Amino acid sequence: MEKITASDKVLLLGKSDFLVDVAKGMFHTNHGTINLSKLVGKKFGTIIKSSKGESFSVLRPNINDFLDKRLARLPQIISLKDCSLIAGLTGLSSGYNVIEAGTGSAFLTVFMANLVKPNGKIFTYELRSDFFKSAKKNIDDSGLSAFVDAKNRDISKGFKEKDVDLVVLDMIGAEKIVPKAYKAIKSGGFLVVYSPYIEQVKAVCNEIEMESFTEVRTLECLVRDYKITRDFSRPNTTMLAHTGYMTFARKV
Amino acid sequence: MEKITASDKVLLLGKSDFLVDVAKGMFHTNHGTINLSKLVGKKFGTIIKSSKGESFSVLRPNINDFLDKRLARLPQIISLKDCSLIAGLTGLSSGYNVIEAGTGSAFLTVFMANLVKPNGKIFTYELRSDFFKSAKKNIDDSGLSAFVDAKNRDISKGFKEKDVDLVVLDMIGAEKIVPKAYKAIKSGGFLVVYSPYIEQVKAVCNEIEMESFTEVRTLECLVRDYKITRDFSRPNTTMLAHTGYMTFARKV
Amino acid sequence: MEKITASDKVLLLGKSDFLVDVAKGMFHTNHGTINLSKLVGKKFGTIIKSSKGESFSVLRPNINDFLDKRLARLPQIISLKDCSLIAGLTGLSSGYNVIEAGTGSAFLTVFMANLVKPNGKIFTYELRSDFFKSAKKNIDDSGLSAFVDAKNRDISKGFKEKDVDLVVLDMIGAEKIVPKAYKAIKSGGFLVVYSPYIEQVKAVCNEIEMESFTEVRTLECLVRDYKITRDFSRPNTTMLAHTGYMTFARKV
Amino acid sequence: MEKITASDKVLLLGKSDFLVDVAKGMFHTNHGTINLSKLVGKKFGTIIKSSKGESFSVLRPNINDFLDKRLARLPQIISLKDCSLIAGLTGLSSGYNVIEAGTGSAFLTVFMANLVKPNGKIFTYELRSDFFKSAKKNIDDSGLSAFVDAKNRDISKGFKEKDVDLVVLDMIGAEKIVPKAYKAIKSGGFLVVYSPYIEQVKAVCNEIEMESFTEVRTLECLVRDYKITRDFSRPNTTMLAHTGYMTFARKV
Repeated sequence: MEKITASDKVLLLGKSDFLVDVAKGMFHTNHGTINLSKLVGKKFGTIIKSSKGESFSVLRPNINDFLDKRLARLPQIISLKDCSLIAGLTGLSSGYNVIEAGTGSAFLTVFMANLVKPNGKIFTYELRSDFFKSAKKNIDDSGLSAFVDAKNRDISKGFKEKDVDLVVLDMIGAEKIVPKAYKAIKSGGFLVVYSPYIEQVKAVCNEIEMESFTEVRTLECLVRDYKITRDFSRPNTTMLAHTGYMTFARKV
Repeated sequence: MEKITASDKVLLLGKSDFLVDVAKGMFHTNHGTINLSKLVGKKFGTIIKSSKGESFSVLRPNINDFLDKRLARLPQIISLKDCSLIAGLTGLSSGYNVIEAGTGSAFLTVFMANLVKPNGKIFTYELRSDFFKSAKKNIDDSGLSAFVDAKNRDISKGFKEKDVDLVVLDMIGAEKIVPKAYKAIKSGGFLVVYSPYIEQVKAVCNEIEMESFTEVRTLECLVRDYKITRDFSRPNTTMLAHTGYMTFARKV
Repeated sequence: MEKITASDKVLLLGKSDFLVDVAKGMFHTNHGTINLSKLVGKKFGTIIKSSKGESFSVLRPNINDFLDKRLARLPQIISLKDCSLIAGLTGLSSGYNVIEAGTGSAFLTVFMANLVKPNGKIFTYELRSDFFKSAKKNIDDSGLSAFVDAKNRDISKGFKEKDVDLVVLDMIGAEKIVPKAYKAIKSGGFLVVYSPYIEQVKAVCNEIEMESFTEVRTLECLVRDYKITRDFSRPNTTMLAHTGYMTFARKV
Repeated sequence: MEKITASDKVLLLGKSDFLVDVAKGMFHTNHGTINLSKLVGKKFGTIIKSSKGESFSVLRPNINDFLDKRLARLPQIISLKDCSLIAGLTGLSSGYNVIEAGTGSAFLTVFMANLVKPNGKIFTYELRSDFFKSAKKNIDDSGLSAFVDAKNRDISKGFKEKDVDLVVLDMIGAEKIVPKAYKAIKSGGFLVVYSPYIEQVKAVCNEIEMESFTEVRTLECLVRDYKITRDFSRPNTTMLAHTGYMTFARKV
């Protein structure tokens, strides 16, 4: 069982949950101050008390903790269920090279960087400088910046990456990038376009039809959560009913 | 752009689709024989003709092509959408160590091995020797056997792996394994149980409640495909409406 | 075009919406007082102004306006989508005789009474006297009391109605009523049980299996709303994901 | 308990199911001939044997048996779940007057006629003479022709009915009828348009926006069936995932 070091991030689970750097030393919360330096040398799974006597379990975090608790979010992100399908249906894994636009808050960027490590790379384009700055900070904070090349640049002006395994577009006007994306994808590689509206899907599918793509598929992913108790089982009363449509296409 | 070598697998897309080893040499199909040796040195994306004059596009395959076209399947597999969520919601990526039971036809095994490579491992248990043999063959054929330790063994008799990132159970009586799984998972790691029936979910959730798990969640994933043409857009008429429930729990 | 009479109910649509009896005379709202007596002799569709100068359109109400705006609701009602399927899948229409338990707030009672009128009847049983009182008031207020026989009585103690077209059960312990319901249904008639939890569905299905029922079917109804604008179309972001399961069975 | 008369229709449930007129006398099936005249004076629920010794239960049919087993169907019908919502959400019941176009095979026509009887009427328009003939036969066969006025006429050429409670459009070019429909609907009445494609929904919503409608709502209805046994409960593996979108609007 690995021990906590001064360079680790830890997940604190208590009355509130936090993802913090042990190196931060003293960590102030509404539930009291936590002396993180005491954690060094302890095992993950240990419990630490705040100055107010509140207990926090100390867990080893994973990428989703970062995405959920640390990443500074812009209004629109691609939700984890959709990130999962984009990755799963394209075979995204270590060694993949990916072009992404726009970066947004870098939620999908970081999710993908974690999958392509240690020998793949995400080339991500963001037009707006304010989004880019926020994204850059998130990428650096994720510890995965070695696997990301983030650019504050309008992808519609062109890009030089070639022979990539995947191009992911989540941007207004994605349809205009399709021909360029086609050229950049290697044979057998994928284009994925994320579109909140059906009109965007149509515009993208029209462009996809003009190129030599195969396995074209538009889908949406619905996750239904359940409430399970000893006595009663039922689906949750409400659910997230729409995030976006995902269009997949594969270069011949 | 990489060239095809004699040790590659290639995806042939034509009237029928195939995933074949170039090393096979002559490949016989209903649409004529294909001389694969001619492909060596050509670029992926090239077209090859069969002895009957049928054209096949030659693409670089990915892990899903293997799962879809080569893996010998037992009746029940965990579908790609569910594999994607299991991976995405647990942060599965290179370096993860995973215990899986049962192996079945190794569909999920191979899917996960592709994600944990190059420095993680899937320890997978299968009770039935006939399933184990089939699974072993699939694992070897996938080219990912270095990242899999497959055992023809009843996991309920115990196992020695410790401090794993994830335990995935897809087996009758999964609920009996929950206490042992809990011990084997490292702090912050995950248990995922796949259950076709709601009664199995309940049995599993009852056991999960007895251990120190957090973030317990049962869900199902529904993928809705769309038909998009220039004129008309609508969801497909029928859909896969149920595969299985997935219960997630995280060790404190 | 029919004119408004003093005995009508009218639907007022404005900054707030109301369903009121014209006979009420002066109607006080946060948006001013409305002199309803002025409406007599006017056509439906007219506009009336409140003392504060706010405009209200005056519409002819239907049964759903009553259910939505006037019926005093207990926490749990069977939603309109589910009422619609119960009626639609059993052929509920004028002349049907129906046994219902429990009455609850009489939402389904009134919905069904509106369909069986002018020559059918709803016999509805409610154990709790507080619920019964509230239900009775709602039934009277609906104007459909001629088609309802409401009883403050525990249906499990037995009932005398026979040869009914439909028995609808929405109550804890519905499974215990199934044998009695079977006896009361005429050949070709239906039993419908509404169950929020899957465990209740199972208990009911086990009892149904013991009687001579056919066409047994358990289902749930999901309604997905869309946002449609000139530019963009998409499903609503959230939806009501679970109300209850409905089990249908038909007496041979 | 009512007895079977010579003018009844009966539902025969056996190795195959049939809806037949007792007046037919001898009824020939693959499972032998059934002498229907023997049923007169027997109770519904009785069992009759065919000449081959096969047993058939004799049930009182309802409107859905007619729609399911007797109505001659054109390729496209509005499914029962959607008919149910159209009726339920508009309050359709005895006394309603309805304009419908096109009639198609009269599935929805007959469904609605059964609800508006004994004092309402369905005015239904069908352009194609072959569809009209088939629809007319179905309406006559349903026994509900007194509540239907079927016309072989292009509704876009105009119609004279006024002050109706509901206009239902299920036709190509429905959007062009919206202004005329608006005029024909009484205050508080409804327009419902059934559209298989989202593009049709948009065209209709654009027209609806131009008139004085309120409570505009587009939705689809999904019914999920379950398999419930003593041991295991789960949703059915496949489901009908799309029939059509329904747009509701109410005249102010």
